[in-house]
Amino acid sequence: MDAIRRKVSTRELAPAEKLPSIRGLARSMQLSPSTVAEAYDRLVAEGLIHSRPGSGFYVAGSLPLALSEVEPRSNRAVDPFWVSRQSLDGGADMLRPGCGWLPADWMANPAIRRAMRRLTRSHDALLSDYGPVRGSLALRGLLARQFAAEGIEAGPDQILLTASGTQAIDLVCRLLLQPGDTVLLDDPCYFNFQALMRAHRVKIVGVAMTPTGPDPSAFAQAVKEHRPRLYVTNSAIHNPTGASLSPQTAHRILSLAADHEVTIVEDDIFADFEPEPSPRLAVLDGLSRVVRIGSFSKTLSASIRCGYIAARADWIEGLIDLQIATNFGGPSPVAAEIVHGALADGSYRKHLAGLRSRLARRRREVARSLEELGIRPFLEPRGGFYLWCRLPDGRDAGSLARFAMADGIVLAPGNVFSLGETAPDRMRFNVAQMADPRIGSWLRQALES
Amino acid sequence: MDAIRRKVSTRELAPAEKLPSIRGLARSMQLSPSTVAEAYDRLVAEGLIHSRPGSGFYVAGSLPLALSEVEPRSNRAVDPFWVSRQSLDGGADMLRPGCGWLPADWMANPAIRRAMRRLTRSHDALLSDYGPVRGSLALRGLLARQFAAEGIEAGPDQILLTASGTQAIDLVCRLLLQPGDTVLLDDPCYFNFQALMRAHRVKIVGVAMTPTGPDPSAFAQAVKEHRPRLYVTNSAIHNPTGASLSPQTAHRILSLAADHEVTIVEDDIFADFEPEPSPRLAVLDGLSRVVRIGSFSKTLSASIRCGYIAARADWIEGLIDLQIATNFGGPSPVAAEIVHGALADGSYRKHLAGLRSRLARRRREVARSLEELGIRPFLEPRGGFYLWCRLPDGRDAGSLARFAMADGIVLAPGNVFSLGETAPDRMRFNVAQMADPRIGSWLRQALES
Repeated sequence: MDAIRRKVSTRELAPAEKLPSIRGLARSMQLSPSTVAEAYDRLVAEGLIHSRPGSGFYVAGSLPLALSEVEPRSNRAVDPFWVSRQSLDGGADMLRPGCGWLPADWMANPAIRRAMRRLTRSHDALLSDYGPVRGSLALRGLLARQFAAEGIEAGPDQILLTASGTQAIDLVCRLLLQPGDTVLLDDPCYFNFQALMRAHRVKIVGVAMTPTGPDPSAFAQAVKEHRPRLYVTNSAIHNPTGASLSPQTAHRILSLAADHEVTIVEDDIFADFEPEPSPRLAVLDGLSRVVRIGSFSKTLSASIRCGYIAARADWIEGLIDLQIATNFGGPSPVAAEIVHGALADGSYRKHLAGLRSRLARRRREVARSLEELGIRPFLEPRGGFYLWCRLPDGRDAGSLARFAMADGIVLAPGNVFSLGETAPDRMRFNVAQMADPRIGSWLRQALES
Repeated sequence: MDAIRRKVSTRELAPAEKLPSIRGLARSMQLSPSTVAEAYDRLVAEGLIHSRPGSGFYVAGSLPLALSEVEPRSNRAVDPFWVSRQSLDGGADMLRPGCGWLPADWMANPAIRRAMRRLTRSHDALLSDYGPVRGSLALRGLLARQFAAEGIEAGPDQILLTASGTQAIDLVCRLLLQPGDTVLLDDPCYFNFQALMRAHRVKIVGVAMTPTGPDPSAFAQAVKEHRPRLYVTNSAIHNPTGASLSPQTAHRILSLAADHEVTIVEDDIFADFEPEPSPRLAVLDGLSRVVRIGSFSKTLSASIRCGYIAARADWIEGLIDLQIATNFGGPSPVAAEIVHGALADGSYRKHLAGLRSRLARRRREVARSLEELGIRPFLEPRGGFYLWCRLPDGRDAGSLARFAMADGIVLAPGNVFSLGETAPDRMRFNVAQMADPRIGSWLRQALES
């Protein structure tokens, strides 16, 4: 350890330089490989070096000129950021059955490429100006027509494009919440809703999920007891459970929200995965107390970032000012143009139909192979790529996820989704990210040990 | 009015349909044109129709299927959003001597197009995945090398890409501010700093600007009296004054900030317009209590949105979590790749050199023609496109701007920049947006009347 420390401090070992292999160094220093391995582990803990699974050990340190990438830390807390940080920052060879998106080669890449090529020939203003405050009129018009087909009468002026679906919810929170307010979330819910609410310094109250949406009597009690300002949910193909609202639950929740003056943010991000639309609060309500949020990250591209808010006209005005104040305008006009080009591309409907049937097949296959390991899905979702499962024998999903991370596998343990940490034996699996046979054999081994 | 109301409600006049001209309707209904004009004005106030300056009147209303665009309102308050809303949303024929960007044909469009064309041939993951949490390593590496050349030792890990320069400051505020904290701003300063601070519910205190930066004794008094947590400024080519920090002021401000534990956000957005770098707080300080912010919107493209934060490593970790919570990751990887491609393009340096000399010429020409109208610049800036001027005879810039808006011209009146509203007779002009002779003649007429 001292030898390596000295070499790093004298820059004999440069930042980002690869260290000798454990076996090689053991041979040359006449030590046992386990001694070297232990020394390396300590240096990793000290932050002097870091390891890249499957590649070896590298010098860390302050690297003004080198191109180094920070590796995800397998020792970080299993908190609401756990899955995001680990799955976003893992190397290309990381396996990601816990992540929240489709593999790159499942996405609408040809349509994206065509839209980008068209864009390279467009006029200068589109490539270099900020663009209108609500974002591309063409894209908003397309959304407004889709909404009209569902029965929502909202003009393009009631739609505000944003830099992402998350930023869309963030803006609504900025408009409607004060620090100290209370917000209802489903328990379990998308982990980032918790992270976002904490950033807004609000109190969070959880409502238990059922296979047909939030439990109406729990919801009734929560709105009475806590007087929340906002309720944030996915009505269709709920993350992580895969539940979709029943008509009765939808009506009940909306009536309770009206009685207690709760505004609802309905995050419709998985809408395009549904074979046919299930009940939506925004449709029942007509955008009076429901705000619809969405994005194109799950079916089109997560790299070309664009989300939207559909809401009451007077709220849109306030949201525009807030978006200018905090981001100076909305999404990149170039991004909105690519999204519009790809959505309007003749191939997009076929792409969606293909995704849906491919995912239906994968959900069945993965459910079957998980069952063989004693891992049981909570329900059979109508669409999408998640299976919310119970591990056998009360196994702790958190420690399983930590072990998996050390082996280069990102899992999504139940409690990162649960406000009350009531899901220690649950795990969310992404069926589209489980083709690699190493995932199944890792799970089998881990559950047997 | 009743006739029009009926036609709109029966959809005989469709949403977004153009109404007959005032003169035409007056003739056909045998009324005086002023009667028709008054009726139209009332219908505009009711929100049933709207006017497009120079084009006519159109049916408004809830337009689920029509493609309508809301026009900027010339009657909105002259507040910190005034310039942004009016200049972003005006039609293509609006003249914008008050806006904050270069005309589209001044920008690096060929480099952008080349970078986009290369991108259409890149691998699927770049086009469809979220990308690493800090954003493109290539772009961060390029920035780190630029910073190293200035004398700032910051590795790519100390740089976080963001969706925009404004969002960069917003994230820093989220990390470091609590509601009720105090923030120092220059008076005058970029109007959106005020809007952003209001969104964070903090107290704002202004420090008077001099031609060499903030007034050090006013700064000393403000930090003593108000104990601010943050000071946000442009050190080089300050917006709107065009001032650049002198070495003495830089040293003085940084020492005062250290004595009173004030963190400084240095927004370096105009850096590339400088012929040679002027003193920077981030360089003197070495990113200990100074956070550097920047973007590529002013010299490269405002449509391809990307900003950055360079800061202490421990703050970057917190900022990453906040960016995930509020935007799920940073800028579009596609946007960062286009920016990197264009910056690394051989033509970019030449583009900058061309911009600088073109702007130097325009600053001289515009200053001369403004002088002829009695409009006097506060100082001769080292670079950039702003001239901060005093109007003759104590003319009120706010009412001038309101009149101009009615004639399709966006001006930037002094008080939208001034916390204390101490700049009623100041106006910021964008020399690159003043080529149209109608601007000069409008100003001449308005000042003579």
